[in-house]
Amino acid sequence: MPFRTRLSFLALALCLSAVPARAQNALQNVSPGLLEDIVIGSRALADFGVLDGFGHVSARDPANPSHFLMSRSLAPALVTADDIMEFDQDGNALDARGRAVFLERFIHAEIYKARPDVMAVVHTHSPGVVPFSVTKTPLRAIFHNGAFLAAGVPVWDIAREFGATDMLVRDNGIGKSLARALGDKSVVLMRGHGDVTVGPDVKIAVFRAYYTDVNARLESQAMGLGSEVTYLSAEEGAKADTVNFAIIDRIWNLWKMRVQPTLK
Amino acid sequence: MPFRTRLSFLALALCLSAVPARAQNALQNVSPGLLEDIVIGSRALADFGVLDGFGHVSARDPANPSHFLMSRSLAPALVTADDIMEFDQDGNALDARGRAVFLERFIHAEIYKARPDVMAVVHTHSPGVVPFSVTKTPLRAIFHNGAFLAAGVPVWDIAREFGATDMLVRDNGIGKSLARALGDKSVVLMRGHGDVTVGPDVKIAVFRAYYTDVNARLESQAMGLGSEVTYLSAEEGAKADTVNFAIIDRIWNLWKMRVQPTLK
Amino acid sequence: MPFRTRLSFLALALCLSAVPARAQNALQNVSPGLLEDIVIGSRALADFGVLDGFGHVSARDPANPSHFLMSRSLAPALVTADDIMEFDQDGNALDARGRAVFLERFIHAEIYKARPDVMAVVHTHSPGVVPFSVTKTPLRAIFHNGAFLAAGVPVWDIAREFGATDMLVRDNGIGKSLARALGDKSVVLMRGHGDVTVGPDVKIAVFRAYYTDVNARLESQAMGLGSEVTYLSAEEGAKADTVNFAIIDRIWNLWKMRVQPTLK
Amino acid sequence: MPFRTRLSFLALALCLSAVPARAQNALQNVSPGLLEDIVIGSRALADFGVLDGFGHVSARDPANPSHFLMSRSLAPALVTADDIMEFDQDGNALDARGRAVFLERFIHAEIYKARPDVMAVVHTHSPGVVPFSVTKTPLRAIFHNGAFLAAGVPVWDIAREFGATDMLVRDNGIGKSLARALGDKSVVLMRGHGDVTVGPDVKIAVFRAYYTDVNARLESQAMGLGSEVTYLSAEEGAKADTVNFAIIDRIWNLWKMRVQPTLK
Repeated sequence: MPFRTRLSFLALALCLSAVPARAQNALQNVSPGLLEDIVIGSRALADFGVLDGFGHVSARDPANPSHFLMSRSLAPALVTADDIMEFDQDGNALDARGRAVFLERFIHAEIYKARPDVMAVVHTHSPGVVPFSVTKTPLRAIFHNGAFLAAGVPVWDIAREFGATDMLVRDNGIGKSLARALGDKSVVLMRGHGDVTVGPDVKIAVFRAYYTDVNARLESQAMGLGSEVTYLSAEEGAKADTVNFAIIDRIWNLWKMRVQPTLK
Repeated sequence: MPFRTRLSFLALALCLSAVPARAQNALQNVSPGLLEDIVIGSRALADFGVLDGFGHVSARDPANPSHFLMSRSLAPALVTADDIMEFDQDGNALDARGRAVFLERFIHAEIYKARPDVMAVVHTHSPGVVPFSVTKTPLRAIFHNGAFLAAGVPVWDIAREFGATDMLVRDNGIGKSLARALGDKSVVLMRGHGDVTVGPDVKIAVFRAYYTDVNARLESQAMGLGSEVTYLSAEEGAKADTVNFAIIDRIWNLWKMRVQPTLK
Repeated sequence: MPFRTRLSFLALALCLSAVPARAQNALQNVSPGLLEDIVIGSRALADFGVLDGFGHVSARDPANPSHFLMSRSLAPALVTADDIMEFDQDGNALDARGRAVFLERFIHAEIYKARPDVMAVVHTHSPGVVPFSVTKTPLRAIFHNGAFLAAGVPVWDIAREFGATDMLVRDNGIGKSLARALGDKSVVLMRGHGDVTVGPDVKIAVFRAYYTDVNARLESQAMGLGSEVTYLSAEEGAKADTVNFAIIDRIWNLWKMRVQPTLK
Repeated sequence: MPFRTRLSFLALALCLSAVPARAQNALQNVSPGLLEDIVIGSRALADFGVLDGFGHVSARDPANPSHFLMSRSLAPALVTADDIMEFDQDGNALDARGRAVFLERFIHAEIYKARPDVMAVVHTHSPGVVPFSVTKTPLRAIFHNGAFLAAGVPVWDIAREFGATDMLVRDNGIGKSLARALGDKSVVLMRGHGDVTVGPDVKIAVFRAYYTDVNARLESQAMGLGSEVTYLSAEEGAKADTVNFAIIDRIWNLWKMRVQPTLK
């Protein structure tokens, strides 16, 4: 084969390698709707700046509830269904085929282990939230969309148990500690790092990541006004959070329409 | 049926399905201009972040002034003329045909009942405003575009009359309480929730929703400067608000041009 | 004339009225470059949120220095060269042809009269600036791009001379009072309203409107840090402002590229 | 020529036409990847508002380590590979061909001279950072992405050594003073001006410019909450910064995809 032809074949091959490898994905037993939820959630949170180049959205595998589904190591704004991989209960990739995985997959593994009710987990470096992770000021529910915060928002400081680290949840032991701090709540803040939100499905976990950020910003602003702030009571929070479940599709459909064009 | 006829039927069907389904809408007595105002207002407020996935814009029905017009349950950024439905004086949908309706339609129903001068109502979770709904710091007119605030901005706390609720205006009784708190004003804040603005037409009610948010943010920033803040006096507010009516079309035309491309 | 011909004339007329009426514009002696500067400046400030639906950019007429050039009443984001009209030294439109004019054209008329060195004037409701217009905290130069503020920024309160008004500069007397408050400075704040910036050409006046807003936001943030703030000294300000003149084209070309697509 | 070959030639031609016109640029010994990094970094920082019309990104010339590569005088959002020029150790352009150069190229020249480990330099007027440059409040690492700040962030005040200036690093003497203030750190703030970040390659220097801005905003917000703030310890910072190097490509690829469309 003459050199020029080989060169152009190379160019063609490069083009082809840019196309997502649909046929190669092993997750044939997972419903496309669940993969789509992970993709929409990742991209919507990136679009709102709740995620930047980092953070991740996962879902428990319905077919194998001790396993979970999460993207290969990739900026959330770029995640497609074909990037999603399967992980076992300890955060090991089942079919890595050379793909890089997120260092902090242990956040997800240990929370799924500790919380059978949790079907989805989101980890962010949410800019609204980080300030609350480093002060004694508690994050509290300031309006009904943040109602799930009224049950209490624990702050987990990695240094308390592990001393001076690189701040990351890089093994199962650290993941377990974080899962313990989360307890039975919907959100846990990570000191000098970000937060984790959980939910009974991807939509609710993403909704909570978004409104934790919004609520944190509103609370900061309210505190700046200098007079006492009234928060939702625990009872109001519990009642109002029920409504969030009823209306989730209204905002999810909006988010889907927002990010759909980025998928083409 | 010959092939060409079938083809043209098909073409016709395609046209009809692409064109908003005007013919199916029962609101044949409502001027398209009024429906358009609701659509433009909903989308403009969403575009500015005054509304997110929630909130609604309504108008009194000119043909039947005890009734009002409002979208089916839908994120405001997605509302089209064909989503707008008719509601009676108690907030019952006249021709639901299975369409979901907003839970908080009682905000609108009870304000139209209590305030014959009000021709349009907007409900938002405006991020600038929420902080003022949960503190004792009053929202006041800081610049001439917020002049309508100089008459006073009541804050309504659902808990005062109804105890621990899910925070929503989910029946006529709660709507009546909110309408009483609004009184003869243009804006009422809802504790831990958002606000309601009203006006003599959709454009003015939307203008007020927008500038209530802007004014709230400016007031927060002014208070942060740490020295005393001078607000518009009641007399200045009354005079300056007259100007807002005179210039409304200048900004409305801008908003219309901004959101028009989203309607195609 | 047969009906069909009349119909096609009508169609032609409709087309023509949609095309900007280039041939009809009376400003044939004004260089296209100057009209373009007004258009670019208006749209760039709108793009940055320094202007919203209101505010205006004007230039002294080089051919007739007692006159000035300003758009008809129109949101700044929509201004085209064909919307620009000529006004005399008292703010009267020379060739209105039914076009609505800005109520506050007296800001421009009286400043051009009082300040022969001023070749361009910008009026905004700049969100960064409004808070400084209503408190005793002076707006000061916090960084070199805001160097022109180091000479001092007067605050004009319309109420001091005119009592309770609608806050607007709606006649020559009020315009004169504002021009007196501006004195020999580059910027004057208007209590509960906005600001006016001036310059030796449109680019510099627009640059000042933009960086007055940026500087105000930075100063607010610096004050929030709670320790003493160091501002540019008057001497540093004078020296650094010279540099702003040298580099203006670098940022102007960027702004032009940013807004050019909106002109097509 | 068979059809497939023709097709692949076409693909090759399309690829080639997308590449900037290399042949005219004198920098033929510089790898296209390095020029691309400067372009992507400049445009990404402009896209995020860390740079506006001003500021610059440079890289040490790998072929001639006493020299460096930087754009001609141009807004960072507009920089292309062909705008990049070569400068000697004192900041003199080697092949200016009439192109204007940045006045503050001495920032880069003197830092490359003083810090052999530094391979890239970024200068910004970062809005998050300016407030920290004018107060006694130190900028500190508030979260792991800002870990490189935990080693300490010096503030350089040009007035201390040079009295009242135009604030600019306009000669080698001022550049040397700034380089001394930077010392062995990754970031130095410039009073009333902005900052400089450095790194072992362009990606890391740009990453630091971005996260210095983000970290500064988060620290401002945390301080506004009114209770004590916990920062990363020096040891945590050192460990967490190692991670930033490991994950840089994930965010860089995102930034590249974000700004690539602006290059066509």
